[in-house]
Amino acid sequence: MRILVVNVNTTASMTESIARQAEAVAAPGTEIVPLTPDFGAESCEGNYESYLAAVAVMEKVRAYREPYDAVIQAGYGEHGREGLQELLDVPVVDITEAAASTAQFLGHKYSVVTTLDRAVPLIEDRLKLAGLTDRLASVRASGLPVLALEADPDAAVAAIVEQAAAAVEVDRAEVVCLGCGGMAGLTEQVVARTGVPVVDGVAAAVTVAESLVRLGLTTSKVRTYAPPRPKQIRNWPPRVG
Amino acid sequence: MRILVVNVNTTASMTESIARQAEAVAAPGTEIVPLTPDFGAESCEGNYESYLAAVAVMEKVRAYREPYDAVIQAGYGEHGREGLQELLDVPVVDITEAAASTAQFLGHKYSVVTTLDRAVPLIEDRLKLAGLTDRLASVRASGLPVLALEADPDAAVAAIVEQAAAAVEVDRAEVVCLGCGGMAGLTEQVVARTGVPVVDGVAAAVTVAESLVRLGLTTSKVRTYAPPRPKQIRNWPPRVG
Amino acid sequence: MRILVVNVNTTASMTESIARQAEAVAAPGTEIVPLTPDFGAESCEGNYESYLAAVAVMEKVRAYREPYDAVIQAGYGEHGREGLQELLDVPVVDITEAAASTAQFLGHKYSVVTTLDRAVPLIEDRLKLAGLTDRLASVRASGLPVLALEADPDAAVAAIVEQAAAAVEVDRAEVVCLGCGGMAGLTEQVVARTGVPVVDGVAAAVTVAESLVRLGLTTSKVRTYAPPRPKQIRNWPPRVG
Amino acid sequence: MRILVVNVNTTASMTESIARQAEAVAAPGTEIVPLTPDFGAESCEGNYESYLAAVAVMEKVRAYREPYDAVIQAGYGEHGREGLQELLDVPVVDITEAAASTAQFLGHKYSVVTTLDRAVPLIEDRLKLAGLTDRLASVRASGLPVLALEADPDAAVAAIVEQAAAAVEVDRAEVVCLGCGGMAGLTEQVVARTGVPVVDGVAAAVTVAESLVRLGLTTSKVRTYAPPRPKQIRNWPPRVG
Amino acid sequence: MRILVVNVNTTASMTESIARQAEAVAAPGTEIVPLTPDFGAESCEGNYESYLAAVAVMEKVRAYREPYDAVIQAGYGEHGREGLQELLDVPVVDITEAAASTAQFLGHKYSVVTTLDRAVPLIEDRLKLAGLTDRLASVRASGLPVLALEADPDAAVAAIVEQAAAAVEVDRAEVVCLGCGGMAGLTEQVVARTGVPVVDGVAAAVTVAESLVRLGLTTSKVRTYAPPRPKQIRNWPPRVG
Amino acid sequence: MRILVVNVNTTASMTESIARQAEAVAAPGTEIVPLTPDFGAESCEGNYESYLAAVAVMEKVRAYREPYDAVIQAGYGEHGREGLQELLDVPVVDITEAAASTAQFLGHKYSVVTTLDRAVPLIEDRLKLAGLTDRLASVRASGLPVLALEADPDAAVAAIVEQAAAAVEVDRAEVVCLGCGGMAGLTEQVVARTGVPVVDGVAAAVTVAESLVRLGLTTSKVRTYAPPRPKQIRNWPPRVG
Repeated sequence: MRILVVNVNTTASMTESIARQAEAVAAPGTEIVPLTPDFGAESCEGNYESYLAAVAVMEKVRAYREPYDAVIQAGYGEHGREGLQELLDVPVVDITEAAASTAQFLGHKYSVVTTLDRAVPLIEDRLKLAGLTDRLASVRASGLPVLALEADPDAAVAAIVEQAAAAVEVDRAEVVCLGCGGMAGLTEQVVARTGVPVVDGVAAAVTVAESLVRLGLTTSKVRTYAPPRPKQIRNWPPRVG
Repeated sequence: MRILVVNVNTTASMTESIARQAEAVAAPGTEIVPLTPDFGAESCEGNYESYLAAVAVMEKVRAYREPYDAVIQAGYGEHGREGLQELLDVPVVDITEAAASTAQFLGHKYSVVTTLDRAVPLIEDRLKLAGLTDRLASVRASGLPVLALEADPDAAVAAIVEQAAAAVEVDRAEVVCLGCGGMAGLTEQVVARTGVPVVDGVAAAVTVAESLVRLGLTTSKVRTYAPPRPKQIRNWPPRVG
Repeated sequence: MRILVVNVNTTASMTESIARQAEAVAAPGTEIVPLTPDFGAESCEGNYESYLAAVAVMEKVRAYREPYDAVIQAGYGEHGREGLQELLDVPVVDITEAAASTAQFLGHKYSVVTTLDRAVPLIEDRLKLAGLTDRLASVRASGLPVLALEADPDAAVAAIVEQAAAAVEVDRAEVVCLGCGGMAGLTEQVVARTGVPVVDGVAAAVTVAESLVRLGLTTSKVRTYAPPRPKQIRNWPPRVG
Repeated sequence: MRILVVNVNTTASMTESIARQAEAVAAPGTEIVPLTPDFGAESCEGNYESYLAAVAVMEKVRAYREPYDAVIQAGYGEHGREGLQELLDVPVVDITEAAASTAQFLGHKYSVVTTLDRAVPLIEDRLKLAGLTDRLASVRASGLPVLALEADPDAAVAAIVEQAAAAVEVDRAEVVCLGCGGMAGLTEQVVARTGVPVVDGVAAAVTVAESLVRLGLTTSKVRTYAPPRPKQIRNWPPRVG
Repeated sequence: MRILVVNVNTTASMTESIARQAEAVAAPGTEIVPLTPDFGAESCEGNYESYLAAVAVMEKVRAYREPYDAVIQAGYGEHGREGLQELLDVPVVDITEAAASTAQFLGHKYSVVTTLDRAVPLIEDRLKLAGLTDRLASVRASGLPVLALEADPDAAVAAIVEQAAAAVEVDRAEVVCLGCGGMAGLTEQVVARTGVPVVDGVAAAVTVAESLVRLGLTTSKVRTYAPPRPKQIRNWPPRVG
Repeated sequence: MRILVVNVNTTASMTESIARQAEAVAAPGTEIVPLTPDFGAESCEGNYESYLAAVAVMEKVRAYREPYDAVIQAGYGEHGREGLQELLDVPVVDITEAAASTAQFLGHKYSVVTTLDRAVPLIEDRLKLAGLTDRLASVRASGLPVLALEADPDAAVAAIVEQAAAAVEVDRAEVVCLGCGGMAGLTEQVVARTGVPVVDGVAAAVTVAESLVRLGLTTSKVRTYAPPRPKQIRNWPPRVG
């Protein structure tokens, strides 16, 4: 089967990193097709950039001409999944929800740990809409921006690990979802420090998407995700390049 | 004071209709500036069109060069308010939330009545995020699309009135918010049929926006709605026209 | 328009202070009529006194003979608003609810900061009944009674400011409602310390009441707030003075 | 032990009826002391009358000079229990809460059936504050006022029985609480029609009060129900008679 | 009346201790019949042991041949109450729920304090199913296993008392339920340290069971707790001894 | 990988049917090992039988001597999953939760349709504990017992299909989970009648279990599901056969 894995920002190197994560867990016979939006922010760290990503992801997928079996939106806490579900019949999986759903099979409560403090409410709101907050212990942020990773990667990783430990010890999480990508060895260090299972959103989403395809299930079209009604769309999509 | 009232679709006649509703209730000294997005759907009836509206509204407001005191997003159940709040210091008011907040001062429970069945989950989700569902009795739809209004306006209005009556009698709403605009005499007929107060979202939003301005209050910038961090935005905004 | 602003305690100087707050924000053409109950406690700091205030406010309003357009109950976390809504057709606005509704337009979560610890559950319960707790971060108290204000005003204000800062930093509030009046400069100091918008209940209630009147909306009479049925009321109202 | 059972209205015949219900279930050695408020409505059917009852009940209990071990507030869905808890150290039991607590031991979900439609939101709100709504299937009303009982008792009882049956069959209640007193044979008829346990609030409250006394438990005084602070109460209590 | 009080573990000395607690509060004329399961763990400290207890308790009660009026399941946070309710017509009372129900009559919020950290989620889940978490402030554990009691009883009691104090001061509980038995003087020390009412589950359950019996109420049989349908049960119950 | 699929009742033909469902969806390389408990009821239709199943499943898995990678508990709405999670390090998947988690990726709300009315509260409670009720539209039952299937299979299937249609049309479900197995062609008929995706619990659980294994994730052992502490278990497990 072929799964489109769409980055939410326009940084190609992050798309590649996401693709590698996806391929590492994909089943034999699954082809991962990484896509980078044609417009939008180099990284998504707030609602404006996230809304931009929502439409850029949709246009990128609409422009893809080969057949495919499922789509993964690979951004943590971002807007847009509902729009993709309207446009497509194939399953659409958001990594925030895939991670949380997976975590709930492993422990009594789970937490999400991310980098920027301002991302916390976005993640909380996406989980709230997804109906996945009853067993959410906390969403925690290290407070260090993503760029700090490059300046001082050890310090950045240490700050994340520390928040994961607090999630387990203070908030009583039994599973941790990592809501930030691209940190080498991060998962291992969180496991080592906390002793709890650590869920990576991209990997979880690949297995969820594969499962839905294998089960022959597609997005329900009876109401919320019925195809858009035919109508005039003005000045859209934008001409790019 | 000057309030931008932004339509969510690209139909100029609807922008004018919204502007008239806003002006009818605006206080002396309040200038209503109606804006129509430069791109997007002729009407918003689903998530894809709604996400498109979200970014189109943001770009329209960003491009506006005169000073202003508040912004109203005039679409029922649409995405985008959070992004505007990031971009702006002045208050941003969504008509879905303004109507619900207003309704809660008038009765024990309130309902929203709209046209399309597929809009119901969008409205429910926006109210859920806004924390305004504890006293929500129901969101009901007449099932008739907006276009039916033109073909047979009396039937369309009658269908809405019937749902409002069911909201009051079956769902036990004591106030009704109308989640659909542009129907002459609709409010009067719902009041006549149900005997309960009927809240129009645009009108409610104008008074909320004026109130926030007079109170000297602006959007909180400490976390969720902090301004976007400076970064590269690729191929955006789109060149239109 | 004329708005009755009813104090919940029998201390006339506090009624005057509330009236000044209300007049400072009232629109041109709005007349504020301050009222002090004829019986009850010199300050409301618990359920017994609050229930007493509820009936004293109702009787004071019932005894008022001139026409008016709305009523504000100016006590934080007090009982009684539902009774007024039964007795009156005009809008009734409680300052606790007006502050919370207003705060929700400005940030992702809000907190209330008050003086006495024992007032916290009363405020929580009123917000729970009003359906305004989904985005409530916390209700915090300084622990200092109101009287401490006179003995050492700087310490009392400092204690409040400290709790507001904890609400923002620990509880993640993005807006603060002040559930205690009469402290000169309090709002300014909380803004200066926390950087978040600070909502005063009396001021917020004035704009809400004015808005409802301008929108032509009145209390729903179909069920919960239908007028009391005609019946014998024994030994009531009490003869005073 | 001695338990004060306080009616919420000023109709002495209803106080007697309540006393008989209480005495029928009281343990040997329990003395039931029925009290009728000195002021207030002949029946409580709304918020205004209910707030009046709250203070009238408190004053009646305050004026009682003999020792006693517990107090029962015998009104369904009425205000005031929190105030009594402040004034007294002995346990205070509201019949609405006692019935619901009792019902929860007997089935998966419970309903409350009452007479007047307008009482439904009051009962819902009291149960909400009491934290007893998770397993509440519904609050239903027959729509017939209490006075209809005298005009056509059979029809009134039949209407209640019909709502109880709907609670069991439609709302899936497994236990029914009767939120209306004084109907001969009502309990038996509801049991006969529905086959589910039927809880009478007054009887349940007597056993709860006796239990708390026997367990040596008293109202917590650390925060919410701490005694009122000493202060000036103006023109209160009213002189009656 | 006769009440079966069933221990959840196979340690006879604990059954005796529970029986003494029950008898201390039982009304004159109430006979307490203590029962120890024939199989299962010497103490229940987790889900496996708790599920084992659930069936062992059921079989012990099924094997009891004399008439009785009610059953108390005397384990904190254990599985099984629903099964007993199916098998029996007489009331079934779980001490976890009896304690919480009782606590809710005494203060605004309550906490449960227990020994083992791993018991916290079990207790939380049982209270969640019972619909008793709205006013639950916290479930706290001392972290010391039950056996620590024997090695150093003073330290064990001190650790519990410390958590109870934190429940009151940090979590704002106004009543404490003790979710661990068999510590001499524990209740007195918690009362002395916190000043709040302390509820013992076994004692509370005895009064609840007696109350239900005196009210003539039995378990609802219309749906959830209807008797098991006649069918083949293979290899069960186990032959013991 | 090897996955144990454990039936909850003692009817071997149902174990075989479950095994066929599991094998139909299992990935190449996945070995399905069906297990039938050694004791318990021929079908689980209530709490007593369900608790019995919980311990029978645990003992059957404990007695299994070969290595395996995951366990599926194949009963809808049954007790016991938490106990298995304590006993095992490998992932444990309950089909009720796997179906609901899967459904949530496909539509805005989902319903569960089952046979017996008395199973509804059990399923609701399991979903409540699993934190999967926010988007649950309803749990509906056809009211026909499983045995009706044999007497008149067409009528039994038709009754289920009718409830599924009501779930979609009345309760607004967009996905349906089938909480009853063994009906030939049931899924197809529900899809044909409703047009929504239909999720089979056993199939969903197989893909979830495979996913967890491939992701290298195991049950968290830090608190709730830590291994049972070493202690004496009396008269257990039972000698069978």
